[in-house]
Amino acid sequence: MPTHEAGALHAQIPAPSWLEVPQDVNALLGPLWPRTAHKLDDAVLQVGGLPVGEVVRQVGTPAYVVDEVDFRARAAEFKTEFERAFAQLGGATVHYAAKALISVKIARWLAEDGLSVDVCSGGELEVVSRGGIAPERITFHGSNKSDNALRQALRIGVGLIVIDSLPEIDQVARLAAEVGVRPAVMLRCSIGIEAHTHEFIATSHEDQKFGLAVADGSALEAVHRTLNAPGLELKGVHSHIGSQIFDTAAFQQAVQRLVRLTAQVERGTGQPLTELGLGGGFGVAYTTGHDPLPAAELASRMAAAVESECNDAGIRPPHVTVEPGRAIAGPSGLTLYTVGVVKPVSLANGLSRLYVSVDGGMSDNIRTALYGAEYSATLASRRSLAAPRLARVVGVHCESGDIVVQDEYLPADITSGDILAVPVTGAYCHAMASNYNQVPRPPVVAVRDGRVEVLVRRETMTDLLARDTGA
Amino acid sequence: MPTHEAGALHAQIPAPSWLEVPQDVNALLGPLWPRTAHKLDDAVLQVGGLPVGEVVRQVGTPAYVVDEVDFRARAAEFKTEFERAFAQLGGATVHYAAKALISVKIARWLAEDGLSVDVCSGGELEVVSRGGIAPERITFHGSNKSDNALRQALRIGVGLIVIDSLPEIDQVARLAAEVGVRPAVMLRCSIGIEAHTHEFIATSHEDQKFGLAVADGSALEAVHRTLNAPGLELKGVHSHIGSQIFDTAAFQQAVQRLVRLTAQVERGTGQPLTELGLGGGFGVAYTTGHDPLPAAELASRMAAAVESECNDAGIRPPHVTVEPGRAIAGPSGLTLYTVGVVKPVSLANGLSRLYVSVDGGMSDNIRTALYGAEYSATLASRRSLAAPRLARVVGVHCESGDIVVQDEYLPADITSGDILAVPVTGAYCHAMASNYNQVPRPPVVAVRDGRVEVLVRRETMTDLLARDTGA
Repeated sequence: MPTHEAGALHAQIPAPSWLEVPQDVNALLGPLWPRTAHKLDDAVLQVGGLPVGEVVRQVGTPAYVVDEVDFRARAAEFKTEFERAFAQLGGATVHYAAKALISVKIARWLAEDGLSVDVCSGGELEVVSRGGIAPERITFHGSNKSDNALRQALRIGVGLIVIDSLPEIDQVARLAAEVGVRPAVMLRCSIGIEAHTHEFIATSHEDQKFGLAVADGSALEAVHRTLNAPGLELKGVHSHIGSQIFDTAAFQQAVQRLVRLTAQVERGTGQPLTELGLGGGFGVAYTTGHDPLPAAELASRMAAAVESECNDAGIRPPHVTVEPGRAIAGPSGLTLYTVGVVKPVSLANGLSRLYVSVDGGMSDNIRTALYGAEYSATLASRRSLAAPRLARVVGVHCESGDIVVQDEYLPADITSGDILAVPVTGAYCHAMASNYNQVPRPPVVAVRDGRVEVLVRRETMTDLLARDTGA
Repeated sequence: MPTHEAGALHAQIPAPSWLEVPQDVNALLGPLWPRTAHKLDDAVLQVGGLPVGEVVRQVGTPAYVVDEVDFRARAAEFKTEFERAFAQLGGATVHYAAKALISVKIARWLAEDGLSVDVCSGGELEVVSRGGIAPERITFHGSNKSDNALRQALRIGVGLIVIDSLPEIDQVARLAAEVGVRPAVMLRCSIGIEAHTHEFIATSHEDQKFGLAVADGSALEAVHRTLNAPGLELKGVHSHIGSQIFDTAAFQQAVQRLVRLTAQVERGTGQPLTELGLGGGFGVAYTTGHDPLPAAELASRMAAAVESECNDAGIRPPHVTVEPGRAIAGPSGLTLYTVGVVKPVSLANGLSRLYVSVDGGMSDNIRTALYGAEYSATLASRRSLAAPRLARVVGVHCESGDIVVQDEYLPADITSGDILAVPVTGAYCHAMASNYNQVPRPPVVAVRDGRVEVLVRRETMTDLLARDTGA
């Protein structure tokens, strides 16, 4: 079959080791797609009970599409599994990290489903509050909180403020006195563990902006200062060790260091610390090369670590918080693009790479350029009988780094007008979107039960010019 | 002097080789600051005839500040020098690349000062048109232009459309017929030269999305197709070889390849190509480690190359276009931030790094995280008598990569409430800004003759929620 030979030829272009030539270029591969996504016999991608063509007819492209059932199921799974795993210990609460993806309606889903939420700015606090998240379910993070945002948090009475530095202790105490409240606070500690994917490093020092270092005594000094601040109620210590973590070994190390610190404080001051913040950073599969742990496995391994370390340290297990953001929002979202220019580009040795342009790019997904993130893609609007061909999906921006998907096998006959779907774009794509090249930002829409609900509408040229005083 | 010893101690932290401990930590160093910027005896930064405190009083922080005199002087210098250098050849036109920084009022400056402009989207075309740039002074670029943006360009009658691919020839021809115009077009060629800073590589192939490859015959095929399209007027060939280029060797190579291609076309078809597009990519000094060429030097060297290559090739020198964006906007802009948390972070060997948090970050300047870009900074609101201390300027975002300035010597007593100025943020900072963490974007203000003029107003929470359908 000639198409197969073509596929084999193009397979000679260097591709990442995890990327295999697909048996069926029309199939949805691996655990990358939200749960309601599937392809019927015509190979058209369906999600939320709708063929993507219908979503595109209603809202155009590019568009961020959130599978509402999937998002809520992932959130519920984290909540159920962590509550279950920690039930015989001090209990656990799952805080959705709003920075990954938030809108007022998404906050409403979380409120309805009983999730707690992390915010790290006045803006995020405003959005989740409008969505009906009860203040006591909100934790306020950040390494450089403004007085105004802290005042706002104190006035509405957020459940926890995670203090990040020594000066912030005085800042929160001062503002709490001004507002007339006594907030519950945790201390974010820098514990010398930095984790990413399958690797982590455990040192004593961390060269980054977050947290109070345990190693140099800053964390303990902060504990004493906080306990001595009459306006603050110290609940415990917190750490966040990284992102896209696929293993629990680093979390086990973090639990050990935090529990030992907790025990040291309890012994030294007689003050029990009833909260333990283990942060987020749980990895998701962006490609078939990734293998994240299920929430149940994460929860049971982390619970086992907390139990064992608390036994060793001789303290009562504190209540635990975890903060998944990407792990909930990421895989529930996908981006729909319309293909434009398709251009084979000659490389050395007679090979060529297929450049597939789409109508978005680094303005709606900066992660590929920013982190070298890997993504996948599928032709979503029709069945192709062509062979798979190694392609690079690029955007509309005037920049050679404007790449959406570095490497993917797409049908060799992919062409202008096709709809391309890129999965696992639910987290940090809309959140970090820009207007680079004066490109308006795509809408965020939820799909469910055959209906499209706009969460954030498409930006218009009028929106873009609204702040331009010359327009 | 004890403070000096402290400076010496902290100097042991690894710093980039170009970064020296400053003699006077209050001084403005190197060629990094716009021309009206200076410090008086009180070491307060003045720009556009205003102390920064006054700018901050009027518009707050963070704020992008453009020195209007500097911006316009740089634009005028490029225009004058290139026109002068090419006067005895085929002439030259300077196109400001709007992608670097644009607003309607900035477009008005360019219109008043007789600059031409490059755009690469319908949005940029809209903004510069509103600013009064005459259509014939606009060149439309882009690797994946939408039908709608092309229609808009054809209807208003832009001066040039730079065609990037074979399918675009048919697209432009089809839309030109629809609109009833015969546009002048150039062909963007991929000529195998990739330049950055002091280095360039010259190969036959380029693995990137832009252009029609000369090596594999795509460029020549495009020439023939365009000449055969009755609705298109082929003016010449174009290349853009990179960014932050500090030397002219790569441009000289590019001139050689483009002139040879031009000569080949003229000989093969009898059709003279009267335009030669040499693109942009002229470097600017972000730090004292950078040494860009003055516009006059760039212009005369490029003119010499065009003259010599055209002589060799036996063709009449075509009219040349160059496209500076960063080289005009970059050094004319600076960002003002208010310092928040200042935190010494212990590293190994008893050293520590000073983390200086400001009230912005990767949402207003993604370049540090995205490209590993280097920046400088100065304490702008007061004189400090403290020793210089190696610091890292970080932002408000919940991400450890949220770094604004990787390494800079700042006064060891820098503290909450100080104003920090980061120079050379005029290009690709506002242009690529996001709302990450629901942080509203800063205003862009021009300063001139003691007055602040808002070009783009500060984003508000109301703006942020305008597209949120649940708000």
